[in-house]
Amino acid sequence: MAAQIPAEALQLRSLVRPDQTLELSLATVPVPEPGPNEVLVRIEAAPVNPSDLGLLLAGADVTTATSMGTPDRPVVTALIPDAAMRGLTARVGESMPVGNEGAGTVVAAGASDAAQMLLGKKVAAAGGAMYAQYRAVDTAFCLELPPDATAADGASSFVNPMTALGMTETMRMENHTALVHTAAASNLGQMLSRLCQEDQIPLVNIVRKPEQEELLRAAGAAFVCDSSKPEFMDELTAALTQTGATLAFDATGGGTLASQILSCMEVAANATATAYSRYGSAVHKQVYIYGSLDKSPTELTRNYGLAWGIGGWLLTPFLQQAGPARAAQLRDQVAAGLTTTFASSYTARVSLPGALSLDAIAGYGRQATGAKYLIVPNAGP
Amino acid sequence: MAAQIPAEALQLRSLVRPDQTLELSLATVPVPEPGPNEVLVRIEAAPVNPSDLGLLLAGADVTTATSMGTPDRPVVTALIPDAAMRGLTARVGESMPVGNEGAGTVVAAGASDAAQMLLGKKVAAAGGAMYAQYRAVDTAFCLELPPDATAADGASSFVNPMTALGMTETMRMENHTALVHTAAASNLGQMLSRLCQEDQIPLVNIVRKPEQEELLRAAGAAFVCDSSKPEFMDELTAALTQTGATLAFDATGGGTLASQILSCMEVAANATATAYSRYGSAVHKQVYIYGSLDKSPTELTRNYGLAWGIGGWLLTPFLQQAGPARAAQLRDQVAAGLTTTFASSYTARVSLPGALSLDAIAGYGRQATGAKYLIVPNAGP
Repeated sequence: MAAQIPAEALQLRSLVRPDQTLELSLATVPVPEPGPNEVLVRIEAAPVNPSDLGLLLAGADVTTATSMGTPDRPVVTALIPDAAMRGLTARVGESMPVGNEGAGTVVAAGASDAAQMLLGKKVAAAGGAMYAQYRAVDTAFCLELPPDATAADGASSFVNPMTALGMTETMRMENHTALVHTAAASNLGQMLSRLCQEDQIPLVNIVRKPEQEELLRAAGAAFVCDSSKPEFMDELTAALTQTGATLAFDATGGGTLASQILSCMEVAANATATAYSRYGSAVHKQVYIYGSLDKSPTELTRNYGLAWGIGGWLLTPFLQQAGPARAAQLRDQVAAGLTTTFASSYTARVSLPGALSLDAIAGYGRQATGAKYLIVPNAGP
Repeated sequence: MAAQIPAEALQLRSLVRPDQTLELSLATVPVPEPGPNEVLVRIEAAPVNPSDLGLLLAGADVTTATSMGTPDRPVVTALIPDAAMRGLTARVGESMPVGNEGAGTVVAAGASDAAQMLLGKKVAAAGGAMYAQYRAVDTAFCLELPPDATAADGASSFVNPMTALGMTETMRMENHTALVHTAAASNLGQMLSRLCQEDQIPLVNIVRKPEQEELLRAAGAAFVCDSSKPEFMDELTAALTQTGATLAFDATGGGTLASQILSCMEVAANATATAYSRYGSAVHKQVYIYGSLDKSPTELTRNYGLAWGIGGWLLTPFLQQAGPARAAQLRDQVAAGLTTTFASSYTARVSLPGALSLDAIAGYGRQATGAKYLIVPNAGP
């Protein structure tokens, strides 16, 4: 059935050296024996998500990247700016595996029933170190793929789908009834747009380019605001008034966008007010920052009263808050919609050495909306 | 007993004119008949709190203030900048009374027992329009003062004491164990420092001047950090590490202080960490902005992972969240500590016309820590 399992295989590594240099390389590591409740997955597809880049690139300036070694075993180095280096002291000198999620074929299994049941199956898996040819994974972090799904179909089964579901769940848990999303033409944004249409949640999509607005409208999005247009603030206010959205998820982080959203929410909240309120509207307006596409400081003008909040948002604490039962329900929902609601698309497929080519690093390091890399450590059977 | 009640009396008014000018004046208004559950209070003392200034000054540029009228009936005008005017459309042309709280003698009472019981007593009162010679107040918004307390003792019984208690209550409700406070040498700051010492809550006081540090240390504060010192960040980090404070209340709002506090909290949280966490510490770090001494934008560098939040904080929604029973307990606590824990001090006492002198307006308009005005609409009996 499965190809023979080698004794050693490749694993991508990220190392922060004491000389303030990032080093990316491929290590040859022993292929692990699966433990009793583990399966050994031959990884056939793993996405490069924005949430992988912090660990992978360590804030290094990718324009300084140079490559040594051989085409099969490249060794890439790049300089890490002072500001980024300050937060990295705990990982200096430690060669770290990378890759939050991936998918592939189970080629060996531990003794437990749960593990044995997956033998020969295609699974999606989460838990890190997925940019590798083989990975032993606890069955609790595996999702069996439908028989007709490819590894590429399942590669992005966790991070983006659970994040999209985390946003709509957070909306319900915190008593909002509509959402705002920035960088809305991303893979995640398109997924959230489909999810909100299916669940009839009004969603205001904020994009930065006319072609991104077209893309989302063609896919059925009702509210799309292009921040590059001069009438952006007016259009956003109108969309917020119509939808009543008081919760936003912002992938950009830096600059004035989060503050602009709060300002427009406040105008929308006051549009129906009849009396002057000296402290601003009593409607709570919230922005969660879950990414940092713009690394500059967040600038808040605070012209929206005192009923507002901004904070960081991360998938793992959300799942802990939701609890294991609800998290399992959400995972089932993802499995059912893997090739529809929760489908991802990729603009480039690269091998493990290919993922360390300077072209590829420049490509995913730019974090351009619509450019998405899939690493293929082993070709599918 | 009480002096005769006049038919008309003075009330301070703030008006935003359509020509983008603030107009402050004294109106002669009928002295109201108290309703069944109301008392008529002859106001003898009312503080100028930072929370009064938004309504009073409407964001006008007080350096442009000019005075007309007579010394007894001044009429002051000042220009309102464009940015401030945008939020004021709902109050243009409406002459508004001002003054969140005050204290005085009950000179008439409605028919209810609660009202009759207060006749002839000294009370503190909240509810607005206290910069006036007489004010009818529902007994629910009155606090009977101890027999030996003066109106000046009771004038600040609501806003600052309940805000200080609101901070320690919020700390408990949101599962923090220590606090940070900025502009900590203010009347409110000194009050919070006494309250935290009594309740054994570790409090990190942030001040801007050496003499403010001395003032707080002389009053028993254990942790005081002066942001004007070059070693401020290091001292703040040390204090946060020692106290474990993960909640801050910030009166300044603008600039980088809130972000600096979060940065130091993150360093303190990681001081005990043994492994590298790619998304920052999992410890939730929170800053509530409750004032705007610095009107410039808030600047967040976001170098503190994703477990952080910033938001506006206001007394009224807090009291609604705490519920009426707990609010009543807190009010009793204030009454018991009116001349000790919750005592206020004033640097200037002014009459109603005196409150509209250009000197006084420049004084309280500057919002300098340590300068506090008390308006005396009627001298005490």
